[in-house]
Amino acid sequence: MERVAVAVVGASGYTGVELLRLLSVHPGVTLTHLSAHKNAGLRADALFPSLLGRVSLTCQSFDADQVAAAARVAFLALPHGESVPVARALLERGLTVLDLSADFRLRSADDYSKWYGPHAAPELLEGAVYGMPELWRERLRGARLVAVPGCYPTATILALAPLLAARLIEPAGLIVDAKSGASGAGRTPSLGTHFSEIGEGVRAYKVAEHRHTPEIEQELARAAGAPVVLTFTPHLLPMSRGILSTCYATPTDGERPRAAYLEALRARYDGEAFVHVVEHPPDTAHLRGGNAVHVGAWVDARARKVVVMGAIDNLVKGAAGQAVQAMNAVLGLPEPTGLGGAGVFP
Amino acid sequence: MERVAVAVVGASGYTGVELLRLLSVHPGVTLTHLSAHKNAGLRADALFPSLLGRVSLTCQSFDADQVAAAARVAFLALPHGESVPVARALLERGLTVLDLSADFRLRSADDYSKWYGPHAAPELLEGAVYGMPELWRERLRGARLVAVPGCYPTATILALAPLLAARLIEPAGLIVDAKSGASGAGRTPSLGTHFSEIGEGVRAYKVAEHRHTPEIEQELARAAGAPVVLTFTPHLLPMSRGILSTCYATPTDGERPRAAYLEALRARYDGEAFVHVVEHPPDTAHLRGGNAVHVGAWVDARARKVVVMGAIDNLVKGAAGQAVQAMNAVLGLPEPTGLGGAGVFP
Amino acid sequence: MERVAVAVVGASGYTGVELLRLLSVHPGVTLTHLSAHKNAGLRADALFPSLLGRVSLTCQSFDADQVAAAARVAFLALPHGESVPVARALLERGLTVLDLSADFRLRSADDYSKWYGPHAAPELLEGAVYGMPELWRERLRGARLVAVPGCYPTATILALAPLLAARLIEPAGLIVDAKSGASGAGRTPSLGTHFSEIGEGVRAYKVAEHRHTPEIEQELARAAGAPVVLTFTPHLLPMSRGILSTCYATPTDGERPRAAYLEALRARYDGEAFVHVVEHPPDTAHLRGGNAVHVGAWVDARARKVVVMGAIDNLVKGAAGQAVQAMNAVLGLPEPTGLGGAGVFP
Amino acid sequence: MERVAVAVVGASGYTGVELLRLLSVHPGVTLTHLSAHKNAGLRADALFPSLLGRVSLTCQSFDADQVAAAARVAFLALPHGESVPVARALLERGLTVLDLSADFRLRSADDYSKWYGPHAAPELLEGAVYGMPELWRERLRGARLVAVPGCYPTATILALAPLLAARLIEPAGLIVDAKSGASGAGRTPSLGTHFSEIGEGVRAYKVAEHRHTPEIEQELARAAGAPVVLTFTPHLLPMSRGILSTCYATPTDGERPRAAYLEALRARYDGEAFVHVVEHPPDTAHLRGGNAVHVGAWVDARARKVVVMGAIDNLVKGAAGQAVQAMNAVLGLPEPTGLGGAGVFP
Repeated sequence: MERVAVAVVGASGYTGVELLRLLSVHPGVTLTHLSAHKNAGLRADALFPSLLGRVSLTCQSFDADQVAAAARVAFLALPHGESVPVARALLERGLTVLDLSADFRLRSADDYSKWYGPHAAPELLEGAVYGMPELWRERLRGARLVAVPGCYPTATILALAPLLAARLIEPAGLIVDAKSGASGAGRTPSLGTHFSEIGEGVRAYKVAEHRHTPEIEQELARAAGAPVVLTFTPHLLPMSRGILSTCYATPTDGERPRAAYLEALRARYDGEAFVHVVEHPPDTAHLRGGNAVHVGAWVDARARKVVVMGAIDNLVKGAAGQAVQAMNAVLGLPEPTGLGGAGVFP
Repeated sequence: MERVAVAVVGASGYTGVELLRLLSVHPGVTLTHLSAHKNAGLRADALFPSLLGRVSLTCQSFDADQVAAAARVAFLALPHGESVPVARALLERGLTVLDLSADFRLRSADDYSKWYGPHAAPELLEGAVYGMPELWRERLRGARLVAVPGCYPTATILALAPLLAARLIEPAGLIVDAKSGASGAGRTPSLGTHFSEIGEGVRAYKVAEHRHTPEIEQELARAAGAPVVLTFTPHLLPMSRGILSTCYATPTDGERPRAAYLEALRARYDGEAFVHVVEHPPDTAHLRGGNAVHVGAWVDARARKVVVMGAIDNLVKGAAGQAVQAMNAVLGLPEPTGLGGAGVFP
Repeated sequence: MERVAVAVVGASGYTGVELLRLLSVHPGVTLTHLSAHKNAGLRADALFPSLLGRVSLTCQSFDADQVAAAARVAFLALPHGESVPVARALLERGLTVLDLSADFRLRSADDYSKWYGPHAAPELLEGAVYGMPELWRERLRGARLVAVPGCYPTATILALAPLLAARLIEPAGLIVDAKSGASGAGRTPSLGTHFSEIGEGVRAYKVAEHRHTPEIEQELARAAGAPVVLTFTPHLLPMSRGILSTCYATPTDGERPRAAYLEALRARYDGEAFVHVVEHPPDTAHLRGGNAVHVGAWVDARARKVVVMGAIDNLVKGAAGQAVQAMNAVLGLPEPTGLGGAGVFP
Repeated sequence: MERVAVAVVGASGYTGVELLRLLSVHPGVTLTHLSAHKNAGLRADALFPSLLGRVSLTCQSFDADQVAAAARVAFLALPHGESVPVARALLERGLTVLDLSADFRLRSADDYSKWYGPHAAPELLEGAVYGMPELWRERLRGARLVAVPGCYPTATILALAPLLAARLIEPAGLIVDAKSGASGAGRTPSLGTHFSEIGEGVRAYKVAEHRHTPEIEQELARAAGAPVVLTFTPHLLPMSRGILSTCYATPTDGERPRAAYLEALRARYDGEAFVHVVEHPPDTAHLRGGNAVHVGAWVDARARKVVVMGAIDNLVKGAAGQAVQAMNAVLGLPEPTGLGGAGVFP
C-alpha cells in the first residue's frame, strides 16, 4: 500500500514516544515530522533511547506550514488546552488531525467549561469525532478531526456501554473505581510521581473531581439513551502502565445470571479485533504494550449488584494505540494494521 | 512492669514474623515459645534473617503442654481451620488465646458454614471477642479468646462503622473496592503470588465471594443497627504491604457537606491512639510497619454518593499489630504499649 | 515470502510465551504446532491471556512425528537436560532445531559435565552452532542445530568481546556483576520468586557458581584468543524483565581514553541491527520487549579500570528474540525480520 | 534516664523524616525543635502523614539561637554544602552536632576539594569524628561534631574493612558494585527519580565519579594501613530503600577457604549490636526500617577472587539510624538505645 506521511506534534512525552514506537512499525505510514517544543533540535532516539535504531528524526519547533509540507496526518500529543490552536492551524492547511488531549472530546462546550474552563474553539467541537472505533467507526471514516479518548474513559466505556445499551444495568448509581499506573500522569516530574513517594503504596486522587468523568458520562449516556451521572475514583498504583476499571452497577433484573452479562458483552464485541471478553478477572499485566482490552462481568447475587471490569494499557489502547486504530479507521485501513502485537507478558 | 510470657504458634508465616518483630520490642512481654510445624528445629532468625539479633528462639512442634508450661498468652498465626483444636487445647490449659485466623471471627456458626464449611467448635464462638479494640474495648478486658480481625475488615469497618452508627449513610447498597499488597496472600508460593505474574500489574480476585465479606457485614450491621449486605471486591497490587479500602455509600441526606462526615469520624475516633482522620486521600505508603489507620471521607455531590476510605498496613493493624493491641486491652496495659512506631516512610 | 512452518516445544513457560508473541507477528513464518507437557489440551491464549486474538493454537503433548508433520523449524523452550532427546528426535526427522536451553551451548562435553553433570549426547555438541548472530552469523546460515545463548551471557559477551578482540582489555581478572529481573527464574513458583520475598529488595544468588559462567568464558576466550576465567555474580532485582551486566576489566594501556573503548565498540557493531553503543549508562527500562542491546564503556582513570556494560531484555535478546534472530540467520532472512519493534518505554 | 533535648535541622527530606521516626520513640531524648527552610510553618505530620500521632511539632525557619535555646544536640539533615555554616553556628553555641551531609566526612580538605570543590571551613575537619561507631566508638564518646557516614560507604566499609585489617585481601584493585533504592536520591523530584522512568528498570549512574568514593577509600585505607584506590559503580534499583554493596577483592592467599573470611568477619563483629555475618547472600528486604547490617563473604576459587557483600537500609544504618547510634555513643548511652526494632519484612 502507499504509505501516508504522518507527523507527531508533542513527541517528547509518554504518549509521544508510544506513538513513535507504534508508527515506526506501521506498514501504512511513514513518520516524516516530529515537533517538540522544549526538545527542538534533539533526535527522538536521544530523548528516548528505546527508539535507537527505530526513529532517528530530529524534533522541530512547531510550525504549521512545516508540518503541512511534511505530512498529511498529524497526531497531537499536547497538554490539555494546547491542542486547540495547533489543531485549527493544521485543519486549515488540510491535514487530518488526531488529537490525544481532552480538547475535543466533549460534545458540549458547556460540559467542557464546567470541568476545564471556557473552550477556546467551541465551533470545532461539533465536527470532532470521538476516536473510539468500537463506538464511532462509521463516523471516523474520512473524519478530519478526531478526539482520541482518555485512558480511564476507554477502559470504563468499553466495559459498561454494552450492558447499558442492552438495558441489563441501570444508568443510575454507577460507581467506577479505577486503578492506574503512573505513566498516565505524564513525564513531568513532581512529588506525586516521585518514585520513593509512590513506589510501594496506593492512594486515590482527585476524588469525585477527575476531568475524565464527563467524558465517561457522555458516552455512557449515549449508550444508555438516558443521562448518566456516576461516581469516579481514580487510584495511583506502583506500576508504570495499565488501567483497571472496576465498575459497580445495579442490574435491571436481580435474578439474571452472570452468563447473560457475558453473552451481551460477547455479542457486542463479536468481530472486534481488540476487545476480548474474559471469564477470569482482567489483569493489566497481560495487556502491556498491546492494544487489547479485556472486559468481564460478575454477578453479586447476595447484594444484587453487577461488577463489570475493563482493563487496558493506558498508553496503547488508552492513548497512542487507540489513536493509530482511529487513524486506520479514518484512512480506511484495516483497524489492526500496525497494531498486531500481543501484550508483553510477563 | 512484670513481663508476661507469650508464645507464638505458627511462627513461620508473614503474620508470625510480624508478631515476632512487634513482641520482641514490647516492654510488657517476654517471648518464650515458638511453634512452627514445618520448621520445627529452626531458629526464628534462620527462618527470617530480619530477626537476627532480635529473636533467637528455636521453633518447636506444637505441644499444648509445652506451650502452657512456657507462656500465659498465646498468639495463633495458623491457617484458617487449624486454629480450633489448638485454641481449645490452650484454653483448657488456662492460657489466653489471641487467634489471627478466621476461625472465631463470626458470631454465627451458620454464617461461618456458608462461607467456610461447618465449624468444628461452634460452642467456642459465643465466648470469643472480636479483637478490634476501637469497637470491643470493654469486652476485651480480661477476655480468654480473642478473634483478631482480618485485614480487609479492619480497613473497611473502621472507615464505615462511624458513619453507619451516626446514620449518615445508608446500610443498603454499600460497595467496598479494596486494594491489597501481596503479603496478605501469605508465604506459600503459588502462581498467583509469583513475582513475574503480579509484579507489574493489577487484578481483582474472588469477586463477590471473598470470605472476609461476612465479617465486614457482621460488624457493620452492629454499627448500623440493621442488616448489611454489601459488595466486596478485593484487588491484588504490586506491593508487599498495605490495604486501601475505597467504600461507596449512599448518604441519608444528599445535601450534607463533606465536613459533616469528617466531623463524625473525628468525633468517633477522638482519643484513639491509632486511628487518624485525614483530609488527603489515605496512602498506604505512609502506614508501612506501623499500627496506624488513616480514614477519610468525600462527598460526590453530583452523584449523591459518599466515598469513604480506610488504609492500613495489612500485617500490622490488619493482623499482628492489632493482635498486640488487643492483647494490651486484654491485659489492661495501655493499648499503644509496644506499638509506638510511626510508619516507615518512604 | 513463503512462510515457514514452525513449532514451539515447551510453550508454557516465559520463554515459550515470548516466542509465541514474536512468532505470531513474524511475516516469514506460520506457527503450526505447540507442545506443552503439563498443559496439553489447553489453548495458548487460555494459558496466557496476553495472546488472546493472537495465538489460538492448542498445546499438544510432545510427539516427534506430529511436530515433524507440522513444522520445518522447531524452537525448544524446555528445562535444561530435557532438550537433548527432543532435539535428537527432531533432527532425525529433518527439522531445524533452535534450542533455548543450555544443553548445546558448551562446545566441550568436559566443561558441560563440570557445571551440569554428564552430557547425554556429546556427539551432538560439535554440530551445534552458538546462536548469537553477531558472533556466529556465518555458521548459522543453514545450521541444523542452534544453541540459543543464555540471557546473562548475551548481555556480557556482547559488551566485552569486542574489547577483548581488540586487545584493549586484559582477559585475566574480569569481574561480571549482573542484575536480572525475576522472569529469568522461570514460571515455576518458589519462595525465591514469591512476590513478598523479592518485591522490594535485592540480593545476589549462586555466587561464584552460576552455570552461565562457562558459557561466558567460552565465547570470551574465543574473542580474546586466550583462556578466560572470570568472576560472575548474578543478582535478583524487583522487576520482571531486564538484565544489566556491569563488567570490570583491566585495560591493556591505563592511559587510553574512554573514546577508544567506545570507538572499538562502534566499529565492531557498525551495521548491526540490534546492538547500540550508548554514552549514557544503559537502562533496561529502555529495552523491554525489544531485541536491542545497549552497550557502553567508561574509564576509571584513578583506579586503572575499564567499566563495560551491556543491557538487554532477558526474554527477548536474552532468549526468544535472539532465537528468532538466529532462525532468520539460519533461513537466510534479513535478521530484523519480525523483530522491528522498539522497546516498550516506559 | 533524663531525656536529652534534640533538634532536627532540615526535617523535610527523607533523612529528616527518618530521624523523626527514630527519635520519636527513643527513650533517652525529647524532640524539641524542627527546622525546615521551605516548609517553615508546617507541622511535621502534615509534611509526612506517617508521623500522625507521633510528631506534632511545627517546622521553624533555622535560627541558631532558637535551636540553642531548645536543644542540646542537633542533627543536621541538609544538602551537601549547607551544613558548614549551620554546624559552626551551633557549635559556637555549645551544641553537639551530628551532621548527615558529606561536609565533614573527609579528613583532608584536599580530598574534599577534588570531589566537592573548596571546603568552606577546613579548620573544622580535624575535630570532626566519623560517625561509624563500629570503627570510631572511642573517639565518639563526648565528641562535639560528628560526620555521619554516607549510605554507600557504610555498606561497603563494614564489609571490607575487617578483611583488609586482617590482611586477607589486597588493598589494590578493589571493585565495589553497589545497588541502591531510590530514596537515596532524596525527595526533590527529577526525571531521574520519576516513577515511570525508573520503576521497572535498572541502570548505573555517576560511573567512576560518585562522591562517596573518597569517603570509602579514606576509611578502607585506614583499615588496610595502605592507600586504597578503588572502582565504585552505584546503580539505581526499582525499590525505595536498601543498599547492597557487592565487592570484589584479590585474596592475599588464593588457597584460603571461605571459612577464613567468615571467621575474620565474625571475630571483628563479635559483640556488635547491629552487624551480623550471614552465610546466605544478604538481602536488603530483610533490613528495611532497621539499623542492622548484614555482611558475608564468598571465595571464587577458580578466578582467585573474594566476593564480599554488605547490605543495609540506606535511610537507617545508612543515615538516620547510624546518626542515632552515633549520638548514643557520644552521650554514653548503650548504642542500641531506641534502635531495637527488627527489619520490617516482608
